[in-house]
Amino acid sequence: MTSSPFVLGLQHEAQTASLPINVGIHEPAEGGKKVKNTLIWINEHGTITSRYQKLHLFDVDIPGGPVLKESNSVEAGKDIVPPIDTPIGKLGMMICFDLRFPEISLRLRRQGAQVLVYPSAFTVPTGKAHWETLLRGRAIENQAFVIAAAQCGRHNGKRVSYGASIVIGPWGEVMASSDRVEDADAEREGGREPQLLIVDLDLDLVEESRKKVPLLRRTDVYPEI
Amino acid sequence: MTSSPFVLGLQHEAQTASLPINVGIHEPAEGGKKVKNTLIWINEHGTITSRYQKLHLFDVDIPGGPVLKESNSVEAGKDIVPPIDTPIGKLGMMICFDLRFPEISLRLRRQGAQVLVYPSAFTVPTGKAHWETLLRGRAIENQAFVIAAAQCGRHNGKRVSYGASIVIGPWGEVMASSDRVEDADAEREGGREPQLLIVDLDLDLVEESRKKVPLLRRTDVYPEI
Repeated sequence: MTSSPFVLGLQHEAQTASLPINVGIHEPAEGGKKVKNTLIWINEHGTITSRYQKLHLFDVDIPGGPVLKESNSVEAGKDIVPPIDTPIGKLGMMICFDLRFPEISLRLRRQGAQVLVYPSAFTVPTGKAHWETLLRGRAIENQAFVIAAAQCGRHNGKRVSYGASIVIGPWGEVMASSDRVEDADAEREGGREPQLLIVDLDLDLVEESRKKVPLLRRTDVYPEI
Repeated sequence: MTSSPFVLGLQHEAQTASLPINVGIHEPAEGGKKVKNTLIWINEHGTITSRYQKLHLFDVDIPGGPVLKESNSVEAGKDIVPPIDTPIGKLGMMICFDLRFPEISLRLRRQGAQVLVYPSAFTVPTGKAHWETLLRGRAIENQAFVIAAAQCGRHNGKRVSYGASIVIGPWGEVMASSDRVEDADAEREGGREPQLLIVDLDLDLVEESRKKVPLLRRTDVYPEI
């Protein structure tokens, strides 16, 4: 990572613009055979201050749709990274398929997260069926902002990702979202332009939603996560 | 419960029609001060074969909306009831506010539930904002059918419940739903007629969705629920 032109370039840009960057990368794992699917936080001074390695790998086989075995080439992470302090609040990092597991966001919520991020490349069929519903569900049940940047369109030749980058408020409302793929077959490589969502996050809304609907967990009956 | 005309009547009806009935009741708690919010399963012979006492009580205070303190009058349950065998599959019982806690459905899923039920009386504002999204989320993340019968309209004088009874498939699709309240102020007591949803549940869809997207939990990192 210390020699990647991509990462070094982003660190330079973050510093120049005085803006943090949260970006997903693949980096070599120990042993040289696999890579890590890593999410890094570059602060407004260009320093990498936190990194999360994806915990849940995406091995799916959808009849008539994509077959993907992330575990063939990716090494799974071993830890949940406690929420980090950022200019937009205490932020919990997850990646893509992690979204299907409530446990990880519940842990981050318990540790104080006010913002949950899920940068992703969902497939088109699972994107259409699950993406927005699961993200809104995580926002509602954790009473936190959810920010999910999402790859959109055809890439690496045969893969097509759903898109629909989204920002959701702690009451579950969609505050902003970008384009999504409706018909995977109609997508051509390079056929999409980047899109930018600009949203103000008011952390008072987090406290307000938690006050309105207090969620007293029954950890006498099920384990604390 | 053994002397309630309501419950005895339902047991009689279940037996007469050879149909199971899953119904929520309030019954006296020990000590006589509070009640239990209980969900019972009456089998097709009219016998009560299972009962679940609501675990998470609903204490909310919504500015400009409802203030409700269920814990003032209701005694909380102490256990999750393992899924029961029914003619429509292995069924996990929850009630209303339990919906906001992923833990309870995750436990039931781990114990083999194919169908999750959430009979409810959501408020109108939380119903509009959260009801369908959370239910669809539970169906998707547990890859199970979700059946949620929901009280609809004005009752007990000042309470208005959202409605929108719903049946959801294990891929997250809404298979059927009933009317919902859009404007609480326009609701008058007795202004709604009962509605019936009739849906065939194909349990193969549960297995299919679990096969398509295997959810390998990281219980080496977070506790098994």
